[in-house]
Amino acid sequence: MQKFTWPVRVYLEDTDAQAVVYNASYFRFMERARTEALRARGIDHDEARERYGVLFVLIGVEARFRAPARLADLLDVEAHIVEATGARLIFEQGIRRAEGAREPICDAWTDVACIDAARGKPRRWPADLIGKLRKP
Amino acid sequence: MQKFTWPVRVYLEDTDAQAVVYNASYFRFMERARTEALRARGIDHDEARERYGVLFVLIGVEARFRAPARLADLLDVEAHIVEATGARLIFEQGIRRAEGAREPICDAWTDVACIDAARGKPRRWPADLIGKLRKP
Amino acid sequence: MQKFTWPVRVYLEDTDAQAVVYNASYFRFMERARTEALRARGIDHDEARERYGVLFVLIGVEARFRAPARLADLLDVEAHIVEATGARLIFEQGIRRAEGAREPICDAWTDVACIDAARGKPRRWPADLIGKLRKP
Amino acid sequence: MQKFTWPVRVYLEDTDAQAVVYNASYFRFMERARTEALRARGIDHDEARERYGVLFVLIGVEARFRAPARLADLLDVEAHIVEATGARLIFEQGIRRAEGAREPICDAWTDVACIDAARGKPRRWPADLIGKLRKP
Repeated sequence: MQKFTWPVRVYLEDTDAQAVVYNASYFRFMERARTEALRARGIDHDEARERYGVLFVLIGVEARFRAPARLADLLDVEAHIVEATGARLIFEQGIRRAEGAREPICDAWTDVACIDAARGKPRRWPADLIGKLRKP
Repeated sequence: MQKFTWPVRVYLEDTDAQAVVYNASYFRFMERARTEALRARGIDHDEARERYGVLFVLIGVEARFRAPARLADLLDVEAHIVEATGARLIFEQGIRRAEGAREPICDAWTDVACIDAARGKPRRWPADLIGKLRKP
Repeated sequence: MQKFTWPVRVYLEDTDAQAVVYNASYFRFMERARTEALRARGIDHDEARERYGVLFVLIGVEARFRAPARLADLLDVEAHIVEATGARLIFEQGIRRAEGAREPICDAWTDVACIDAARGKPRRWPADLIGKLRKP
Repeated sequence: MQKFTWPVRVYLEDTDAQAVVYNASYFRFMERARTEALRARGIDHDEARERYGVLFVLIGVEARFRAPARLADLLDVEAHIVEATGARLIFEQGIRRAEGAREPICDAWTDVACIDAARGKPRRWPADLIGKLRKP
């Protein structure tokens, strides 16, 4: 497993009138962490599109929310790659408070597909990209 | 099962640079449909908080994305109540294009908890709310 | 002046932990109303891009917020075209509560440029589009 | 003038189907920079509410967009305090690319009011907060 953690600060934009982080915001945080996990391995959305003609598209998610995050919290958002093959790219993702007791906020699992940018259809991941994703 | 469908138009705000609907936007659409499903049964977030001291908080979600929605699409977003007991409120949710071949976009399942607004802890749903949720 | 008003319901996604509508949400609401004002005149973002090679891009805004909108409010969002020439497309925009005393929430003025989609540079609006924008 | 700059990375969530940053995202970026400018001076939204009973609410904005930001750009977002009195808190805000030619993206001016949290009405800024805002 390739471990990766990205810090996220909670701003007003992320919260809702129930004074907690709005549920869709957690999916934005998890996508930021996935993007940074890819960037750390030399993979960039624009380059993937221009050089390989592929898009990274979320096709599946399971998430369990354990406690709410709140305004001004600093969070650690994980994006661990647990499977990277020609057919699948799976991340194990968790969110926890970065400070104090590091309370878990969310556990999730996300499944990202390789989509051919021109045809809009799924295809296998290019071997080059898989190579970068698997590099220890 | 209590069936409920809510129409959603896709605007620029919902899309991303890959020219499809951004993944977190689907979770916003599904929350709108749940809110309207509750409103159709006479349940309102503010009243739930003021009268019963409870918040509706998403604690679990599973979603499978089948095809991307795009700018200007009109979508039908479902929020069918499949379980409403003192301990659980479960929605079956789907998103499909509202026009043409009504292509399925997303299948999901969402689990909404009753949270005590003052203590921030889970509690059972008030009997009154459950009564409204179960009314055929 | 070409008057146009679009209804918008406030959901949790639009609010923040101060229990009011988050400021950027008003700009999303105003863009929805502009999009619908264009659609009502037979103008669509995708068609503008494919047929004329142009994008609608906000280049200027002035807004004054008079009172906060809140969760579950139904709002009337105005997008009145006050100038449509080859060089400029200006909207006068207001937001007010749609019910009760119809309290004003926001007054704004937005300036939308015609951008050449291929070159990313400003250009004059195509005469066809201006014709549709000016039709009484 | 109290200068303050905050870095912001552009993610998919911030962009739209025109392949540029969506206009409302710039207002989210500017609010993050204002929040961090306040935090740098020891001012926090929650503490302002609990200790002083006040909210920071945007009441006016003027913005001019000069060039679009794009996916993966790193931006410098400014939040310079240009006026801090009992009656007014004004920020001069700019956004520019943080790398390369540091191209200007946006110039803006934002006016933030002190709102009494309990009554929802404007009031003067507490002297303590003004003291912190004016500290060189």
